[in-house]
Amino acid sequence: MTTLKKAPVEVKVSPSHTMRALIKHHAGPELQFVPDRAKPVPGPRDVLVRVSKVGICGTDRHIWEWDAWAASRIPVGIVTGHEFVGVIEAVGSAVTKYQPGLRVSAEGHVTAWKDYNSRTGNAHIASDTRIIGIDRDGCFADYVVVPEENVWPVHPSIPDRIAAVLDPLGNAVHTVMAAGVSAKSVLVTGTGIIGLMAVTVAKAAGAGRIFATDVDPKRRALAKKLGAVEAFDPRQEGWIAEVRKSCRGEGADVLLEMSGAEPALTQGFDALRNGGTAALLGLFKGPVHFDINRLVVFKGCTVLGINGRKMFETWYQMEELLLSGKLELDDIVTHEFPLEQFKKAHHTMISGEGIKVVMNVNG
Amino acid sequence: MTTLKKAPVEVKVSPSHTMRALIKHHAGPELQFVPDRAKPVPGPRDVLVRVSKVGICGTDRHIWEWDAWAASRIPVGIVTGHEFVGVIEAVGSAVTKYQPGLRVSAEGHVTAWKDYNSRTGNAHIASDTRIIGIDRDGCFADYVVVPEENVWPVHPSIPDRIAAVLDPLGNAVHTVMAAGVSAKSVLVTGTGIIGLMAVTVAKAAGAGRIFATDVDPKRRALAKKLGAVEAFDPRQEGWIAEVRKSCRGEGADVLLEMSGAEPALTQGFDALRNGGTAALLGLFKGPVHFDINRLVVFKGCTVLGINGRKMFETWYQMEELLLSGKLELDDIVTHEFPLEQFKKAHHTMISGEGIKVVMNVNG
Amino acid sequence: MTTLKKAPVEVKVSPSHTMRALIKHHAGPELQFVPDRAKPVPGPRDVLVRVSKVGICGTDRHIWEWDAWAASRIPVGIVTGHEFVGVIEAVGSAVTKYQPGLRVSAEGHVTAWKDYNSRTGNAHIASDTRIIGIDRDGCFADYVVVPEENVWPVHPSIPDRIAAVLDPLGNAVHTVMAAGVSAKSVLVTGTGIIGLMAVTVAKAAGAGRIFATDVDPKRRALAKKLGAVEAFDPRQEGWIAEVRKSCRGEGADVLLEMSGAEPALTQGFDALRNGGTAALLGLFKGPVHFDINRLVVFKGCTVLGINGRKMFETWYQMEELLLSGKLELDDIVTHEFPLEQFKKAHHTMISGEGIKVVMNVNG
Amino acid sequence: MTTLKKAPVEVKVSPSHTMRALIKHHAGPELQFVPDRAKPVPGPRDVLVRVSKVGICGTDRHIWEWDAWAASRIPVGIVTGHEFVGVIEAVGSAVTKYQPGLRVSAEGHVTAWKDYNSRTGNAHIASDTRIIGIDRDGCFADYVVVPEENVWPVHPSIPDRIAAVLDPLGNAVHTVMAAGVSAKSVLVTGTGIIGLMAVTVAKAAGAGRIFATDVDPKRRALAKKLGAVEAFDPRQEGWIAEVRKSCRGEGADVLLEMSGAEPALTQGFDALRNGGTAALLGLFKGPVHFDINRLVVFKGCTVLGINGRKMFETWYQMEELLLSGKLELDDIVTHEFPLEQFKKAHHTMISGEGIKVVMNVNG
Repeated sequence: MTTLKKAPVEVKVSPSHTMRALIKHHAGPELQFVPDRAKPVPGPRDVLVRVSKVGICGTDRHIWEWDAWAASRIPVGIVTGHEFVGVIEAVGSAVTKYQPGLRVSAEGHVTAWKDYNSRTGNAHIASDTRIIGIDRDGCFADYVVVPEENVWPVHPSIPDRIAAVLDPLGNAVHTVMAAGVSAKSVLVTGTGIIGLMAVTVAKAAGAGRIFATDVDPKRRALAKKLGAVEAFDPRQEGWIAEVRKSCRGEGADVLLEMSGAEPALTQGFDALRNGGTAALLGLFKGPVHFDINRLVVFKGCTVLGINGRKMFETWYQMEELLLSGKLELDDIVTHEFPLEQFKKAHHTMISGEGIKVVMNVNG
Repeated sequence: MTTLKKAPVEVKVSPSHTMRALIKHHAGPELQFVPDRAKPVPGPRDVLVRVSKVGICGTDRHIWEWDAWAASRIPVGIVTGHEFVGVIEAVGSAVTKYQPGLRVSAEGHVTAWKDYNSRTGNAHIASDTRIIGIDRDGCFADYVVVPEENVWPVHPSIPDRIAAVLDPLGNAVHTVMAAGVSAKSVLVTGTGIIGLMAVTVAKAAGAGRIFATDVDPKRRALAKKLGAVEAFDPRQEGWIAEVRKSCRGEGADVLLEMSGAEPALTQGFDALRNGGTAALLGLFKGPVHFDINRLVVFKGCTVLGINGRKMFETWYQMEELLLSGKLELDDIVTHEFPLEQFKKAHHTMISGEGIKVVMNVNG
Repeated sequence: MTTLKKAPVEVKVSPSHTMRALIKHHAGPELQFVPDRAKPVPGPRDVLVRVSKVGICGTDRHIWEWDAWAASRIPVGIVTGHEFVGVIEAVGSAVTKYQPGLRVSAEGHVTAWKDYNSRTGNAHIASDTRIIGIDRDGCFADYVVVPEENVWPVHPSIPDRIAAVLDPLGNAVHTVMAAGVSAKSVLVTGTGIIGLMAVTVAKAAGAGRIFATDVDPKRRALAKKLGAVEAFDPRQEGWIAEVRKSCRGEGADVLLEMSGAEPALTQGFDALRNGGTAALLGLFKGPVHFDINRLVVFKGCTVLGINGRKMFETWYQMEELLLSGKLELDDIVTHEFPLEQFKKAHHTMISGEGIKVVMNVNG
Repeated sequence: MTTLKKAPVEVKVSPSHTMRALIKHHAGPELQFVPDRAKPVPGPRDVLVRVSKVGICGTDRHIWEWDAWAASRIPVGIVTGHEFVGVIEAVGSAVTKYQPGLRVSAEGHVTAWKDYNSRTGNAHIASDTRIIGIDRDGCFADYVVVPEENVWPVHPSIPDRIAAVLDPLGNAVHTVMAAGVSAKSVLVTGTGIIGLMAVTVAKAAGAGRIFATDVDPKRRALAKKLGAVEAFDPRQEGWIAEVRKSCRGEGADVLLEMSGAEPALTQGFDALRNGGTAALLGLFKGPVHFDINRLVVFKGCTVLGINGRKMFETWYQMEELLLSGKLELDDIVTHEFPLEQFKKAHHTMISGEGIKVVMNVNG
């Protein structure tokens, strides 16, 4: 079980006008450490957060490696990173909800709160979303600015190490909660970072038996340690029949697709019972070839597209699960490095040696 | 509005041991009329229904034309047809719920009531479903036998003409109700028989504005008559932008996919707002090429596979909508023929001259 | 059908620092007209709205009559009123979403957006709600100030007369939509203003047959005109049996309790089928004596407490219903008076001569 | 964790025409053991089950003590008992689903499967329900007859000791699942047998923190052992404030009312947050005095009446939870006695010395 230690909070006001930061310095791979980036100034409705710890996301890997998606989306010169915990150092003139000294994380999806989804509890799929560390400066730095509405006060019993990764944990929680796993059998296809988190989250959130698939034997072993009753190599024949057999010959109640692999999509639906629910988080390389008649229409399935985390229902659910002590995250958050060792940190994550890698900025 | 006349019920017991029937007489197109098919005998838990009227389904067209699906599924020699209304003439020895003289329709999906879905209110997606008129003798005959559990007593204020087509109407009702249209904007892609029914059902079931698409101008005109505010030719550019513009620039709340056309699938999701719900009833020619990242995952959409009708929640919903007088079916059930004119009846339906075609058997 | 005329919008900037207003001038009945109330100044996150039309709410009746509730809640000196439409004249320095010239209504529930419900799409039941016209100055005046988050831009095709009463219409829409009426039989107990609105809303939102009760024959007649198939005097024996008989001998699917009368509560649940849903909007005089075993537990019913309107899901639903042209409000919004005739306006509403009474302020 | 041992199944056909049984022999307290009750004969659609083990329910206590409810409902001469596991010995002539030799439990609610709820997955609240051991002969005997539709095949890994009490465990599962506890804080008021089961079920089904109340310190201690983070004496002031404080100052997300005590009802709702869900299983002594305005309407709460267990969704959920190994039942099923020691068995349960008491009949 994750040990939840009281994290004392203290406000440190920096007199300097510059800060350390990791920036995408040119249209190519890697990031650059700069010691004297201008410290950002919060607007009237923003808060300025002194960053304690940050997490490295799979998205940060794309940015580091400068793949086609990154080249098309990331502005050169930006400070990257969007998973963090820190302490509010200053607030804008029109901020009403929070004050300096509060330990916070934040939702990285920034919206104008004007469209249907923003105004009905679904801001995570707002039509105008911009993301910190992707579309605007992020948190791989001493300071980050976020709108007041994005702030999430962190419960004192959640340690910084976990608070730094609430964003990806939120992906897993949103997927699990959207699908609804309580008293249901669950299949997780793909146990990367979010997939592994999904296993412990599903168990905590009430899943019955959890089945997992992954091509990597280490990930399969970890999935079982975290609560899966079986973990299959998806390339090995017969596993779908085995899942179905375990589930009354009908199939699993719920599919959490976390791999983004096209074969896994079809396999997952094959292993799902008629009337089952599939929540899709993994991103595929392009459009898929998919037998929608057989796998969705005739089966009477429900398919849920999962993007981000609900703002802020997911955050409340995540807090409750963390407070219950049911989540096992110690084997998932595997490494911590100081910010200056950002190369080693990124390599540890990219090589697969580490799972979730955290960098310590000011804490 | 559909005129609902009181339909008097009277029990006619046939002394004969044979009956008229339409059978798939050889592995090829058309059906054959036989005057002396053996009258079926109900098992202990079955009821024997003297058929009053029957509807010709799109599936019956496949059987008539003997396409690849029909050739692979339909046993030669079978009595076809699965949409009907009639009167119970006899009941098996262990039947407890119904008695001769009751005017009934029936759900054509036959199951053993043993699996998860059958025992939890979702027998329409049971894993062992066999369908009358497809896997066993159907209703294009003077008599049909169905299990007691499949019987649906027809409310006296629903006329035979409508009661004969509750099965396909139920497809439309199930699609609309699964998606949930109350106070929502709705896009129906494809206004074939079920698509047209879906327009009037959606309006009755509480949809706000309804948009429709179809390549056939007559169908578009009828969709508008039945309640669509706009009906677009999907091949004409700009219609998706128009739907989105009408819906706050975000898109329709609900998509009812009724065409089975692959382009319509992508168009429909393009016209759907983030977080919208798509109910898929149409069957595609094969696996589809579909941008699941952009159209489902990032959008945070819910996709529902729709198969048959809920047994029997859909039937109750349908009855309530019919009793409310809100459904407009007079322009959809366009033709009636005596059973003996079954060729003309099938041609009227297949040519598109008629929409829903009914054959009168004993009523 | 409600005629929806295009309402042209023009910005009128008042040079004056005072305004007309109706205030609760002393701890007793009635209101006072003052010609020179200080014009309010918006804070950094507020908008200043020049009021066009206002609606008189049942709550305003309590304030007018100065009953026990009003005496305990309303601060003397306040400007009353919370239902309005107007045009934004000025915005605070930190306002980002709206600009002067926009025709708007607003949600009257003001919250800090900090608690669970505010952050999860349910701000209507926030724990810190304060209401305009009750806890702070309201809209019975030339100007009203509301926080930016409370603003609702009004669709151009909705006339001011209707836009002035979106708040109470929203109560009806929230009740109907929370209960879920699509393809269901519905019983409305109590057809006061909101109850009558609920009848037309339920019909538009997809209810099958609607039954209503009221002690007032005029209200019963109007309920039938708006779509109820039957309207009963609840004091007359036998009506519950009649509702049950119409609904398969089992009872109505949905109860919308709009009367706040204790006998209606028990009667309504008696007329509800097992497993039915009851949405309670009416407020009772005090704690009720209620057979919760028989009417809720054994019946397996779902009971929903209804407060305000969802912020802002209800507003979107209401807009869609208004745009569909399905709502019949012409017989509900019965009177309009200039602001100066506020006594006549209040008396018309209190006497029951009018149903929903609107006062014209600047439009 | 409950140890789930493989239970070997063997068919024993009794040649005798009589059997042992416990009957309500007169209109007064206690039961009588009769050695030669006529062995029941299954009808065409019934199964005859040779009983292995039975559970004593709270209802059986009422019958034993012959309170007002029992006197008004129970026919003298009946065989009592409704919780059991056994083996099918014979099936009626029209039975199609099951065969002799199958180890089964059964749902005790018998219905004709004709009304709305029976035909839509909610037969547990059918309007014509009759209960075995209450309205017709029950299972405190060597044999019991139940309709085929009521049979629940027991998974081989569930031991008889647990399989005998699936009925009351199902009450707890239905309550927990209806409320929805996944990632939510939960308050259980009243930790009698079902309340204690609800604690372990809620934990397994995904609850975050669980709070419990009971006047009995032993029950409170057991509630904590089973997973409650706190267990309060409801007579002690301050506990409601403590629950609210633990839950962001707002209150618990979910209330499971298991006490049937009127003060607990008001206390429970007081401790519930706005918009929370309350599931009511406990039966009150009579109509309650309840501040429905403050506790339901203004709070925007959802209240669920809970009766029996869903037929058969609850049974599937229960099986999945048992197979997952998450349920802790060893401290709840405390005693086993042979059938002949029925007096001691009933006294052990009534005195509170035991919690769930099982009698061994043929196993």
